Amino acid sequence: MKPDRIHNFNPGPAALPLPVLEEIRESFLNYKGTGMSIVEMSHRSKEFEAVLSDAIQRTRRLLQLDDRFRVLFLQGGATLQFAMIPMNFLADGRSADYVNTGTWSTNAIKEARVLNKPVKVVASSEDRQFTYIPESVVFNKDAVYAHITSNNTIRGTQWSRFPDTGGVPMVADMSSDFMSRPFDAGPFGLIYAGAQKNIGPAGVTMVIVRDDMLRLVPESLPVMLKYTTFSSKNSLYNTPPCFAIYAVQLVLKWIEETVGGLDKMAALNRAKADRIYGCIDASGGFYRGTAEPASRSRMNVTFRLAGEDLEKRFLEEAARNGLGGLKGHRSVGGCRASVYNAVSLDSVEALAQFMTAFAQRNG
Amino acid sequence: MKPDRIHNFNPGPAALPLPVLEEIRESFLNYKGTGMSIVEMSHRSKEFEAVLSDAIQRTRRLLQLDDRFRVLFLQGGATLQFAMIPMNFLADGRSADYVNTGTWSTNAIKEARVLNKPVKVVASSEDRQFTYIPESVVFNKDAVYAHITSNNTIRGTQWSRFPDTGGVPMVADMSSDFMSRPFDAGPFGLIYAGAQKNIGPAGVTMVIVRDDMLRLVPESLPVMLKYTTFSSKNSLYNTPPCFAIYAVQLVLKWIEETVGGLDKMAALNRAKADRIYGCIDASGGFYRGTAEPASRSRMNVTFRLAGEDLEKRFLEEAARNGLGGLKGHRSVGGCRASVYNAVSLDSVEALAQFMTAFAQRNG
Repeated sequence: MKPDRIHNFNPGPAALPLPVLEEIRESFLNYKGTGMSIVEMSHRSKEFEAVLSDAIQRTRRLLQLDDRFRVLFLQGGATLQFAMIPMNFLADGRSADYVNTGTWSTNAIKEARVLNKPVKVVASSEDRQFTYIPESVVFNKDAVYAHITSNNTIRGTQWSRFPDTGGVPMVADMSSDFMSRPFDAGPFGLIYAGAQKNIGPAGVTMVIVRDDMLRLVPESLPVMLKYTTFSSKNSLYNTPPCFAIYAVQLVLKWIEETVGGLDKMAALNRAKADRIYGCIDASGGFYRGTAEPASRSRMNVTFRLAGEDLEKRFLEEAARNGLGGLKGHRSVGGCRASVYNAVSLDSVEALAQFMTAFAQRNG
Repeated sequence: MKPDRIHNFNPGPAALPLPVLEEIRESFLNYKGTGMSIVEMSHRSKEFEAVLSDAIQRTRRLLQLDDRFRVLFLQGGATLQFAMIPMNFLADGRSADYVNTGTWSTNAIKEARVLNKPVKVVASSEDRQFTYIPESVVFNKDAVYAHITSNNTIRGTQWSRFPDTGGVPMVADMSSDFMSRPFDAGPFGLIYAGAQKNIGPAGVTMVIVRDDMLRLVPESLPVMLKYTTFSSKNSLYNTPPCFAIYAVQLVLKWIEETVGGLDKMAALNRAKADRIYGCIDASGGFYRGTAEPASRSRMNVTFRLAGEDLEKRFLEEAARNGLGGLKGHRSVGGCRASVYNAVSLDSVEALAQFMTAFAQRNG
């Protein structure tokens, strides 16, 4: 930690790699000798097109995407994707399957139903307050797609392996664990991720779409709500969120060149999560993890203390020790350490030591 | 001009006030002692809520908005508004009027028609290549709204006075002249503006909506496509584009406190545009303004030289003299000086002197 920076466990918008922030600051008044800030530059300039192209190429390499996949940059967050997915893929009256693993899945289902699209909830973990990921889900063979939420920020659960959909294209909200680990993109028809957790600031949504899915898109949608607009114009039909894309490009460069790729990113994220879960499990019940152990998230470590007063003191003392963003989601309370890509092992170590000391003082 | 900065006449994304860029840079690693960057901070933190609230209050003061108006921050640019406006306001089968003054109006009309909404084009300047603003437009009394594009970036025209719609709520795309001059918001049902010309970087769209219009919004729309979502949640239903809103807040502060308000902003913009039009008119035909004089834009000064070769040389020599962004829109060619709020009188003076000297050398 630099003396004037805190250990940032925010759930999103979240910590960004310090070298990325420093590079943005250094070039903010004059980007690569253009005499302009990156935010004052045409989205059709060769400089910005190079930023966009680099972000796409790094995404392709990091995820080992083959030629069937397109990398797009949209706006409106995951919430707009909740609506765009059924608008684009369920135009002909066919149905899609959804797995409900929490608030974000629930909202995705709700948006499809607002549009009067036939969706089937084929599995849910609502019976135990979304504290686990359902196993052995059976999907309908005739579903256009099978929707999952890969990581659930509020209850702290994550799919450790993706389900076998029997050939139905998977559609995944990866907003909170995108680029945190390698995976086989092959079974996915579409992947979407708001940037503000693992890959950048708020204001841009990455979408990776397979070309067979694009053939389902109807002509009769507004231009900004059709994936084909973005795929045919390389995300430049209108002015994109240039600054956010630029920051994403720098984060992807950091993952690829500084961290060394997604295998190393995943190992680091595993070490970080293990350190905090280890602390919880060794506390003799002082800290209680809220997710079932087999479903624990490596991005959001959620836990409770013996009572709300003690939790409040924990959060206050943590803040005084330079550990920020540890409050649980307002819908469930408790505590949560979000340890996205840019949260360093040093920050995690500082948290773990604080947790151990706090438990000793108050146990 | 600072030695490492150019005179930036970009059409958007465009120049931002240097003090705003400097303030962003200074606080980029540690915003107001929080130990975090503004881009690493929760949108529900008290610091970000203060940014949002300040941007809204400054907008209310600058435009003298009364209590009927709500100030919202959306994403997707003006192009998404082209669709959202008819989706939100024409749910019951009634019709709206549109005035067609160029590419952006044409696109707005097209998006309404894609949605099968009944819209009437009550006036158009297409007969003379959109080089003028129609006068004495007659609107239908039963129209739900009357849509105009207040400034037309491609052909360089601007409504100098807004039309009398006879009580029909006006809806205006002000993307390219928002906050460049004072106006009476009273007759407007909705005003929208992509930020990336006059008030900030790309990635956020300001919407000002009057409460009677919100009563037209149907329940059955996706949550991110309903104005009522943004009005009821103070633009924080989901994560907003925090960085872009922060930059907008700083630009509005600059307009209010450094420039001294919209009367002074308008006087400065008038002086800037007059200087360049004066140069064109005094050139004895060397430069030809493309807009009819009564309809000239104070934001985008569009002009031609005697031929494309001469225009190419003009642009190249200008660039070598530190004058950037002067190429006309790719759909029409020629030259264009965009002199939005943040373009200084010094930059305009440098351009005018270059234009005069270039005409003398080549006339």
